Amino acid sequence: MIKVAVDGMGGDHAPRAVVDGAVRAAREYDIEIILVGHKDLLQKELARVPSPPLNLKVHHAEEVVDMAEPATMGVRKKRDSSIRVAVDLVKRKEADAIVSAGHTGAAVVATTLSLGLLEGVARPGIAIAYPTLNGSSVIIDIGANIDAKPEHLLQYAVMGSTFANIILHKKEPRVGLLNIGEEESKGPDFMKETHRLIEESPLNFMGNIEGKDIFSGDVDVVVCDGFVGNIVLKVTESLAESTNILLRRELKQSVLSMMGAMLIKPTLSRLKRRLDYTEFGGAPLLGVNGICIICHGSSSAKAIKNAIRVAGEFVKFNVNEKIQTILSSKR
Amino acid sequence: MIKVAVDGMGGDHAPRAVVDGAVRAAREYDIEIILVGHKDLLQKELARVPSPPLNLKVHHAEEVVDMAEPATMGVRKKRDSSIRVAVDLVKRKEADAIVSAGHTGAAVVATTLSLGLLEGVARPGIAIAYPTLNGSSVIIDIGANIDAKPEHLLQYAVMGSTFANIILHKKEPRVGLLNIGEEESKGPDFMKETHRLIEESPLNFMGNIEGKDIFSGDVDVVVCDGFVGNIVLKVTESLAESTNILLRRELKQSVLSMMGAMLIKPTLSRLKRRLDYTEFGGAPLLGVNGICIICHGSSSAKAIKNAIRVAGEFVKFNVNEKIQTILSSKR
Repeated sequence: MIKVAVDGMGGDHAPRAVVDGAVRAAREYDIEIILVGHKDLLQKELARVPSPPLNLKVHHAEEVVDMAEPATMGVRKKRDSSIRVAVDLVKRKEADAIVSAGHTGAAVVATTLSLGLLEGVARPGIAIAYPTLNGSSVIIDIGANIDAKPEHLLQYAVMGSTFANIILHKKEPRVGLLNIGEEESKGPDFMKETHRLIEESPLNFMGNIEGKDIFSGDVDVVVCDGFVGNIVLKVTESLAESTNILLRRELKQSVLSMMGAMLIKPTLSRLKRRLDYTEFGGAPLLGVNGICIICHGSSSAKAIKNAIRVAGEFVKFNVNEKIQTILSSKR
Repeated sequence: MIKVAVDGMGGDHAPRAVVDGAVRAAREYDIEIILVGHKDLLQKELARVPSPPLNLKVHHAEEVVDMAEPATMGVRKKRDSSIRVAVDLVKRKEADAIVSAGHTGAAVVATTLSLGLLEGVARPGIAIAYPTLNGSSVIIDIGANIDAKPEHLLQYAVMGSTFANIILHKKEPRVGLLNIGEEESKGPDFMKETHRLIEESPLNFMGNIEGKDIFSGDVDVVVCDGFVGNIVLKVTESLAESTNILLRRELKQSVLSMMGAMLIKPTLSRLKRRLDYTEFGGAPLLGVNGICIICHGSSSAKAIKNAIRVAGEFVKFNVNEKIQTILSSKR
């Protein structure tokens, strides 16, 4: 059975949301879950659950890397932190994958230091699948690497393309480089060099795309550096939320519009579900020699559950082996 | 009377949308408008207008800087391009401000080369006012400077703050630095250095903000480099559009939801108007020794009209003098 180590202490709503998500995943999927974290806290949360599933166990870790701690220092100093212990389980082959909603930087550092990188990869990147007008696409990197070089972005293009191909079932995924104009001549030198590198690769490269093209679904893989990707992701989330708040506020201004709002409520719920990134569940950290699914800090139990499912799919479909094969053949 | 030189050839819908916007502005505001561009094309568009306003005239310019042309080369080579001629009118004091929906880079280069920068400013930046949950805020830079240094961002903070104060009537505008985490320790070195510089300034600095905070209205001025700002702007625009398309598609799926949609239509229109950046009209290029309002390439006649109004306000309230005073006093 596939085994997933879950950082029980990571996330704004941890340990409760993580424990609830892990319990739901254990019930729904054929996966063995190892909840890593302080045993007293985790057991206390589990005590709320009537007849906890047998394919879920607790593995003690004394410490937690705090959100405000610098990643590298936190990971190095706290040998017995939940994220390090979870990664060590994978290193010792006692687990096949890691899921964490904690300090993203700490997860990246712990995984990279302990498991190393795939051959041909210089820096790991975080990819996330998101809904577009025509289905779904992948954006990479959304925050693992905030000092990316052109060759890192080329590797992200390869990894994002493999992810889109295997997990999202896209044939020859169309790759776009996120820039500030479509012409090759646009953007800083860094982007021009990246454009050249991806163009020379065997990937299905569509050239530069702009911020306005991200949601059209015209490309399957959006490549950008982690600083830009992280900001795009957070702008997107908050904009959807703000529009929702504004709409509700406006709808309350007349009886007719309130009636209308009641009638379209099922539609809005359906739309919200479509736009809800928790439905996909987590973002894989690609390029490391192991499987690590990073979750949003504010992950709900549902998001954690889905991330565990995605971790299982990565193991089952040997995504890393496939990335490795493509990267080797492309050099 | 305030005189505004309008680049008649710039924008996806030029010259028609520009001419229509200029005509409407000439009728509504106490501003003299000089439409700069090829006289045959502009006269042809004006011929459609019944009794064209007297405070609108055409000034011939033989050439246009194409969207695909590199900005600096286009401006240097084309001495008789509409944007250069418009800027020259300001230089010769035959106009007080420029409005352009053409090649943004060309407008930045032409204005900077010909009019120079305000004392204490190293690079100009484009600011744009946008709606938030609590009113409106300013984001600067949205694309003038794609290789910003920390001291440029400090100057943007000062200029954005002045804009928010004078035009948006915010007392002691709250300034936020767009980064990938709220803690001072977050982000690349470039951002840490910028954080230090703004913190040492007398501005009302709230520290780092994340992409999710842009629309909350918790800060009045969002500071970022032009590459990130441009992408944020375009993501925002397209996301609003995509949500709209998805909502319409979903609403068609049942009779009840279609009825509901009809009832909430006035609300949706009101919301759309609130989110419509064309209502504000154009984005000032700040830091240059002159007034230049940049419009979106896809500007409608309404957007052009409003940009002309904003140009007039910048002249009337001496925004540049005020920026200059603050920059001098802050050194």
